Amino acid sequence: MATFSPTDEHWMQQALKLAWKGQYSTTPNPRVGCVFVRDGVVIAEGFHAKAGEGHAEVQAIAQAKARGVCLKGSTAYVTLEPCAHQGRTGPCAEALVATGVQRVVAAVLDPNPLVAGKGMAILQAARIETSHGVLVEQARWINRGFFSRMERKRPWVRLKVASSADGISALNNGVSQWITGEEARLHGHHLRAQACAVLSGIGTVKADNPQLNVRGIDTERQPLKVIVDSKLEISPEARLLQTGRVLIAHTEPQTPAWLPTHPNAANIEALNVAPVAAGLHAGKVKTDLLRLLQELAQRGINELHLEAGFGLNGSFLQAGVVDEIVQYIAPRFLGPGQGLFRLPELEILPAYASWAIHSFEQIGQDLRITWVQNHQE
Amino acid sequence: MATFSPTDEHWMQQALKLAWKGQYSTTPNPRVGCVFVRDGVVIAEGFHAKAGEGHAEVQAIAQAKARGVCLKGSTAYVTLEPCAHQGRTGPCAEALVATGVQRVVAAVLDPNPLVAGKGMAILQAARIETSHGVLVEQARWINRGFFSRMERKRPWVRLKVASSADGISALNNGVSQWITGEEARLHGHHLRAQACAVLSGIGTVKADNPQLNVRGIDTERQPLKVIVDSKLEISPEARLLQTGRVLIAHTEPQTPAWLPTHPNAANIEALNVAPVAAGLHAGKVKTDLLRLLQELAQRGINELHLEAGFGLNGSFLQAGVVDEIVQYIAPRFLGPGQGLFRLPELEILPAYASWAIHSFEQIGQDLRITWVQNHQE
Repeated sequence: MATFSPTDEHWMQQALKLAWKGQYSTTPNPRVGCVFVRDGVVIAEGFHAKAGEGHAEVQAIAQAKARGVCLKGSTAYVTLEPCAHQGRTGPCAEALVATGVQRVVAAVLDPNPLVAGKGMAILQAARIETSHGVLVEQARWINRGFFSRMERKRPWVRLKVASSADGISALNNGVSQWITGEEARLHGHHLRAQACAVLSGIGTVKADNPQLNVRGIDTERQPLKVIVDSKLEISPEARLLQTGRVLIAHTEPQTPAWLPTHPNAANIEALNVAPVAAGLHAGKVKTDLLRLLQELAQRGINELHLEAGFGLNGSFLQAGVVDEIVQYIAPRFLGPGQGLFRLPELEILPAYASWAIHSFEQIGQDLRITWVQNHQE
Repeated sequence: MATFSPTDEHWMQQALKLAWKGQYSTTPNPRVGCVFVRDGVVIAEGFHAKAGEGHAEVQAIAQAKARGVCLKGSTAYVTLEPCAHQGRTGPCAEALVATGVQRVVAAVLDPNPLVAGKGMAILQAARIETSHGVLVEQARWINRGFFSRMERKRPWVRLKVASSADGISALNNGVSQWITGEEARLHGHHLRAQACAVLSGIGTVKADNPQLNVRGIDTERQPLKVIVDSKLEISPEARLLQTGRVLIAHTEPQTPAWLPTHPNAANIEALNVAPVAAGLHAGKVKTDLLRLLQELAQRGINELHLEAGFGLNGSFLQAGVVDEIVQYIAPRFLGPGQGLFRLPELEILPAYASWAIHSFEQIGQDLRITWVQNHQE
């Protein structure tokens, strides 16, 4: 195991900062940043912005070339192992070799087991000093969706929920607009914008007729909208169907009759994801959620942003496929109302909590807590 | 309005730090700290530890004397206006005059309207430069109980509650031990230790038979225990009755028959706090909570720590007498169960939230949020 100096961590932090610049746009590719450093100074930097455009290393090398900077003898910090495969711009590992770089530090290896280490091997064969394993946690977090898709063949699932401080997501008469403040709601759109897809359920569609798109965030890309609608009850007039790409997950034998003549038909897919074995899911939601996630991964979905209601949120939790819960807590105590998740009744308190705090911050008047699964169990 | 330099704020911060040393013990007196500064150096310091012992200024002057330090020409920073009345140690303002101090900075004036400004007047008459109004918010917060008792004739009420992240304080079968972790529970005892009195209801006493004392905290003082027990249902065997001072608030015509022969009788008071006008409180809790608070203030209670159940917590909230809510949120989602507070059902969401974040921090695995009333409304 290589050891790293605080200097290495410092430059990798810079590379991670660059990587975040692609937060809304790299899908289905990972977010990657790269800095070249010589004599304690960054001499070139780049990040991956968009599939089809140059990888981070290629962008940094192009910047150096444009500015007449020689990269020979420098150290390159990349947040993910340089690729070894022939893409639109050639393998990054070979491009790095050509620069005469002396040392390459990668935060983490490529998660794809068929690729991992091959980029580093190309560099080593060219007698370039290599190491990896610095700021691993941050480097995995920034691409937790990509890692999940590569390693588990399903997206990273982030559930977003807003509630009062006493855990109420809506009054008993259904009123929920707005429990949290404007800043928290904008932060929710920032999370949607990061996601490859936003998922909701037919219950929410019927109740709120949401657009389910990203608003108020500077991004060119709109995530795929996914609706769990087992019985295909969605109205062709639903707002979310009018623009953007939509996937309707259902369990009916045929696709919706209105689909072929819908103005947005070219962007709408109706997908049967009934459980392979009948009777597997006897609950209200019959859609096979794990199979749906696998189908989404095959479509290149890294991060799935889940914004559903009491029932579907509970089904996802019970299926054990939620990786992250982002909870906005408003400074209100509302008393009787709808709770957060439909969950089965417990008789005893588990000794270990299933979740752990990842981070928290005040956003406007509200508090944002991000929970991740607790692996101490 | 006087203006203050960052230096003034720095030294007042030091004085506030000292004042906190009396956090568990000064009741019914306020927490006060004092530093004498000359040429950018603290030359003497003191804090008030306990009623009957010297005030902060007197302690600092005694320290200087013991060390042979002359205070002449120095600046004194005190977190509360020096007293002007003859106590066990003489008025602090006169003791300050005797030191030859050049300048006295008080964070805030004494909240007692009969006293406010008199200490400063004694100093001014002796041609000592005086000012006040630095770090006012912190200085009021450290003595929010004392200020409340002086200004409103009732204690500052802090409600403590622990819940899952979905707002469940107990499973439907009553199980609630333990939703939060050990560190959060110890922090709860730290808050009890700060309080002059800890209040709970007969429901909690019947269900949990709590001791309602401070455990695991280094303090000599145990807060008064207050039980709201309208119908005098408490068993003489209840654990909380066996040691320490107890006040039972009830609405019955006579005191408990068992009281005169109880082993701890000398420390137990049964107080009728029925509403003056009958039928005022038609709910389950008939005790007049505001009158109870006024009675507690008359007994020198500054900070009241409320640790009750769903019903009584709700009654306090509805009575509008809760100033602060300390909520421990555990990394669990429990589903069906007991919520936080019995509150009336709302039909619309108020445009403004009634509460505001005061502070928050991670404690062990849990999150602590302190809410205070939102005066933006």
